[in-house]
Amino acid sequence: MIASFIRRILFVGCAFSIVAEASAQTLAERLGYPADTRLIIVHADDLGETHAVNAAAMNALQSGAINSASLMVPCPWFPEVADFAKSHPDADLGLHLTLTSERVYYRWGPVAANDKVPTLVDQNGYFHHDWQGHERINAKEVEIELRAQIERALAMGVRPTHLDSHQYRLIMNGKELFEVMLRVAHDYHLPIFVTRDWFADHPYLQSSLGPDDIVLDHTVTIEPDVPAEKWNDFYLTALKNLQPGVTEFVIHPGYDDEELQAATRERASWGAAWRQRDYDFFSSERFRQMLAQEKIELITWRELVRLSKKK
Amino acid sequence: MIASFIRRILFVGCAFSIVAEASAQTLAERLGYPADTRLIIVHADDLGETHAVNAAAMNALQSGAINSASLMVPCPWFPEVADFAKSHPDADLGLHLTLTSERVYYRWGPVAANDKVPTLVDQNGYFHHDWQGHERINAKEVEIELRAQIERALAMGVRPTHLDSHQYRLIMNGKELFEVMLRVAHDYHLPIFVTRDWFADHPYLQSSLGPDDIVLDHTVTIEPDVPAEKWNDFYLTALKNLQPGVTEFVIHPGYDDEELQAATRERASWGAAWRQRDYDFFSSERFRQMLAQEKIELITWRELVRLSKKK
Repeated sequence: MIASFIRRILFVGCAFSIVAEASAQTLAERLGYPADTRLIIVHADDLGETHAVNAAAMNALQSGAINSASLMVPCPWFPEVADFAKSHPDADLGLHLTLTSERVYYRWGPVAANDKVPTLVDQNGYFHHDWQGHERINAKEVEIELRAQIERALAMGVRPTHLDSHQYRLIMNGKELFEVMLRVAHDYHLPIFVTRDWFADHPYLQSSLGPDDIVLDHTVTIEPDVPAEKWNDFYLTALKNLQPGVTEFVIHPGYDDEELQAATRERASWGAAWRQRDYDFFSSERFRQMLAQEKIELITWRELVRLSKKK
Repeated sequence: MIASFIRRILFVGCAFSIVAEASAQTLAERLGYPADTRLIIVHADDLGETHAVNAAAMNALQSGAINSASLMVPCPWFPEVADFAKSHPDADLGLHLTLTSERVYYRWGPVAANDKVPTLVDQNGYFHHDWQGHERINAKEVEIELRAQIERALAMGVRPTHLDSHQYRLIMNGKELFEVMLRVAHDYHLPIFVTRDWFADHPYLQSSLGPDDIVLDHTVTIEPDVPAEKWNDFYLTALKNLQPGVTEFVIHPGYDDEELQAATRERASWGAAWRQRDYDFFSSERFRQMLAQEKIELITWRELVRLSKKK
């Protein structure tokens, strides 16, 4: 289900489609940019999950390889990245709202008390590995857990600029969970990562969103079908074919070291080598050259909010 | 407080004392060994805390560098070592009952629901960093948490051979907490790591224990005052001066890699380099030679229980 969802993201978002909604204004246009402006958010997620991901993402934020990221509050390395957030108050850091613990040898559970969120946890108290056979996820429990994650982040000094959803759980699992995320986001005055690319497959996204919600135009993310030797080609093609508007590149930088290899050993997808390839491409001169060559501009969630408020 | 406790362990346990209780039988004697027999358990703890500790300890168990270890159930890498325990059912693995989260950038909380153990957690839901200013630890909550840790371990396929206490919290903090640990241990028919060395400073240990409880004769552990270049000398001297009876060497093997350096960066004590030194010494030929030269025998908790039952 995730794979087909991601294929859809790629198909729609990655510029091989000509289904451009020519008549609709892009987010960029509505924010005052010329109609042909192409802006990207270079966004890492999964910060907090392991040290190898934190270290790579913190370096990439400081070098400018990425300009935005989101943090997994329930994970054991969250304190490290919360400390970074406090000492880098201008960094564009959101919360990667997390309801699953998808690895095998390294796991975490909810921030809320286990007994308050029984449908979210397995028999050992961890978040479910996946939601196969656990379709009875209770939306009220999801809301309790999302608020607990945000409250822990605030208490630990993080001032998030946006919210997104680990493994797109809150996006792709129906109107009820999406509306929980949206309600919580509104309560905390935070934008959520949604793109028009997803509206066709998930019409409730569009119908639930209000006129003041920020909706990105497109997203690009790489998928397991791309072989390692085609990694850079995938991103370069995506950048070359980028459509006007605001596109979020959802990437997963990390260092291919002992910790990350061990934490992700059961499958190669989103594994240690994968994350090192992402780190390497977005840290490369070739990426910078392509941005300049294609006149692609960078934007962050903080800037999107600021521009939206001006309108 | 911990430092003075450890100095006491070293002073009493490390053979520089001549306060031998000459009249009392050692545990070894009571189990049928000749009076001058010197046995050691080479015991690693903190398994589950990080991958670098797991990897080093699993290698050390397989090479025979150590012959016993204990696991921290609340920690995120516990599933990795639980998997090892299931595939190595003869390994001598206990549970390192954990009530603190003593690091800064990498943290964990209780297995029991947070709201069931409010005195054990800080405002962010992690176990307290230490118990300074949190002296009102509730013994009933401790019991809830200890049972939750044991139940998770059992549910995940671990069959522990013994229990011990992370940072000696359940040993050194008074009769009430010790009796909780002892009661839980009795309920699960598991021995706990206690040594006669501690009776002078903590008389409630001796008065709480019954005639069927296994009590080790001595323990040896290294302390922060030992400089890195004296590491091997410390252990070689301790082995040379070992007293008759059963002595547990409490050691902390780990690999001095990026993960462990990051997880322990705020202080050198029990840090990454410390743990690498422990791994190196106990994996060395010099250690093996000293055991042979001094005719020191190895024993495990599993064997202690078996021999005790025969008596």
